Amino acid sequence: MRLVQAISSEKIVVFEKESVTLPLGFKAGGMHCGIKRKRLDLGYIVSEVPATAAGVYTTNVFQAAPLLVTQESIAKEQKLQAILVNSGNANACTGEQGLMDAYEMQKNFAAELHIDDHLVAVTSTGVIGELLPMDKINQGIKQILQKEYEQEDNFKKAILTTDTTVKNTAVQLKIDGKTVSIGGAAKGSGMIHPNMATMLGFVTTDANIAYDDLVSALKDVTNQTFNMITVDGDTSTNDMVLVMANGLAKNNQLTKEHPDWDLFVSGLKIVCESLAKKIARDGEGATKLIEVNVSGAYSLEAARAVGKSIISSNLVKTAIYGTDANWGRIVTAIGYSGVPVDPNTVKVGIGPITVFENGLPCVFVEEEAKEYLEQENVQIFVELNQGDCSAAAWGCDLTYDYVKINASYRT
Amino acid sequence: MRLVQAISSEKIVVFEKESVTLPLGFKAGGMHCGIKRKRLDLGYIVSEVPATAAGVYTTNVFQAAPLLVTQESIAKEQKLQAILVNSGNANACTGEQGLMDAYEMQKNFAAELHIDDHLVAVTSTGVIGELLPMDKINQGIKQILQKEYEQEDNFKKAILTTDTTVKNTAVQLKIDGKTVSIGGAAKGSGMIHPNMATMLGFVTTDANIAYDDLVSALKDVTNQTFNMITVDGDTSTNDMVLVMANGLAKNNQLTKEHPDWDLFVSGLKIVCESLAKKIARDGEGATKLIEVNVSGAYSLEAARAVGKSIISSNLVKTAIYGTDANWGRIVTAIGYSGVPVDPNTVKVGIGPITVFENGLPCVFVEEEAKEYLEQENVQIFVELNQGDCSAAAWGCDLTYDYVKINASYRT
Repeated sequence: MRLVQAISSEKIVVFEKESVTLPLGFKAGGMHCGIKRKRLDLGYIVSEVPATAAGVYTTNVFQAAPLLVTQESIAKEQKLQAILVNSGNANACTGEQGLMDAYEMQKNFAAELHIDDHLVAVTSTGVIGELLPMDKINQGIKQILQKEYEQEDNFKKAILTTDTTVKNTAVQLKIDGKTVSIGGAAKGSGMIHPNMATMLGFVTTDANIAYDDLVSALKDVTNQTFNMITVDGDTSTNDMVLVMANGLAKNNQLTKEHPDWDLFVSGLKIVCESLAKKIARDGEGATKLIEVNVSGAYSLEAARAVGKSIISSNLVKTAIYGTDANWGRIVTAIGYSGVPVDPNTVKVGIGPITVFENGLPCVFVEEEAKEYLEQENVQIFVELNQGDCSAAAWGCDLTYDYVKINASYRT
Repeated sequence: MRLVQAISSEKIVVFEKESVTLPLGFKAGGMHCGIKRKRLDLGYIVSEVPATAAGVYTTNVFQAAPLLVTQESIAKEQKLQAILVNSGNANACTGEQGLMDAYEMQKNFAAELHIDDHLVAVTSTGVIGELLPMDKINQGIKQILQKEYEQEDNFKKAILTTDTTVKNTAVQLKIDGKTVSIGGAAKGSGMIHPNMATMLGFVTTDANIAYDDLVSALKDVTNQTFNMITVDGDTSTNDMVLVMANGLAKNNQLTKEHPDWDLFVSGLKIVCESLAKKIARDGEGATKLIEVNVSGAYSLEAARAVGKSIISSNLVKTAIYGTDANWGRIVTAIGYSGVPVDPNTVKVGIGPITVFENGLPCVFVEEEAKEYLEQENVQIFVELNQGDCSAAAWGCDLTYDYVKINASYRT
């Protein structure tokens, strides 16, 4: 894999408050149709014209019905014009009826839009094993395109479950003298683990881009962003990230040979990384975002494995919740990552404080470490001194509230 | 691998209250030497004669110093006559000095016993990254063989860290008309995960047994017992299980060809499984023991992988703590186990209640499931309908107290 070159940040403008409708030709909205008690539970993104589309999906063998329908639909002509999302019910483990319901959602929304069925992606998130309340959803589909529901903010809210905040970001960059925008929104809070966790990500762009290259960019970027977060180690049945590129920015078609390919991929990465970190920070019960930076690995896979091992450790997560600079747990997690590291060359830092080096603990002031760990964003650095590869992973602390939320919430 | 035949329970007598000194020729003791504030922290097992010895060790690449010393010592002539254990300090991540300290412990205890150094195994458990207080340990070693400390109960207590109870069991069986005893004691509470977690297990027997066959029996049995438990998914730097067989029962030497081989292995398995379950039940903060039984797998590895996936899921563990029959989380964990199961043939039961079958949820009375989950021992059954292999895995629920213990305890 060719690594995309780092792009000077001047070339990419980040709009933290913007989302999926910053790119030209996209609208979004959401409403309460009655799946949840009160909060918004049905949302859409629609493009003026069919957009080149790509997706990545959960690796869980119990894939939910809407994922099957969406994958099949994109396979037809690699295009989407709309995405319909419901929250509150995952339509997972629902058998034949669940599949029929997913097709019905697709068909009815396509009819409202007067487009072909296969141009509509359907996605669901929420409780597993219950049939969708199709009466309510069909009623919702009939009304949702009304002007009053058309608000990007409604969309961002309609996709949430146990999330406490909406998650969005957008960037702009210049390609062939044209302004290209990439916007994203996501949900995810529990059942979050690398390889597509209970997580939905929606990315829109007005870039003109070749299908194969869009697929490969999405895959690469997802491996570096969404697949590097964990909340609880559980990989859900419903995860997916979809990207729609409608070409309305009118740049020359992007391919890997285009001089600004790296710029576009960097922009896509900024959007996905921002969404991924927001999901990790909003992990169920979390009070902190933890970022692990691994460098000096002999391969990208090794760097990622070490990062994921640390970020997934319940003992590391509880120590950070307790603002305890318990580096022994970090070292232990490195040790069982499956990567043959040499204990005598590993260096570990908690923020600015080096805690372990040359196989031995370092002397440091506990109070300073405690003060650092009291921050909302905690960074852990690991230098393996075995090579040139590096990776970042994101997660959150494990708290009383995680237990509270999950001892009672029926997913 | 030939599977050992199930042995009728009449042939094996279980003594739940006995431990490592039930077999002939073993004594054990423990004392407070000052590593911990008040509780016992130094313990030993001694055999009258050198015993054939075998061990299994952590897979963590950061192996603690005492493990290196013990492995090297057993390698010399496959024998041990004594085991010295300290708790409160793991002597892990302590570099050259840690290694020298482990050798010093070994040497000094061997001198007290007037035996060769390599006949003494040393093991440590507790805080990572601090040097052992060798003054206190050496003082302890000088006194520990005094009559007043010689009590099996002291040994069982001296090996504990965050454990809330001692863990022991023993069995007796007849081989060649001789009574053969197998006894065990263990510790383990946090950093517990398959492949030798922070867990120490000590097994003694007076059986006369060939070294190679003892090694293979220990490995097989460990894979079915100690390696099938998890508390928090963290594999420690210090895990080990040691078995000493001193031959004083005077049976004809046991080998795989001996007619009572299966009987001996079954006895060993009962001891190890009992200790493993006690460790799981005493997991940090746990209120319940969870047992997952997987059947119908196409291989033993597949059965174990599915069992471990379920027992390791934070979401399953919190649901059981909350007495919530959240089968969706069980199904999800099966789905990400890495085993290519067919969702349409999987059957899942929570105790006597079937909750999922033929790809669909079953109708069941929530209140009945809740009542079942209120018990202290919870069983989950999974039938994959793909073959004839089965496995059991054990763990515990994830509670507020787990977070409390680990947000403050400095391992």
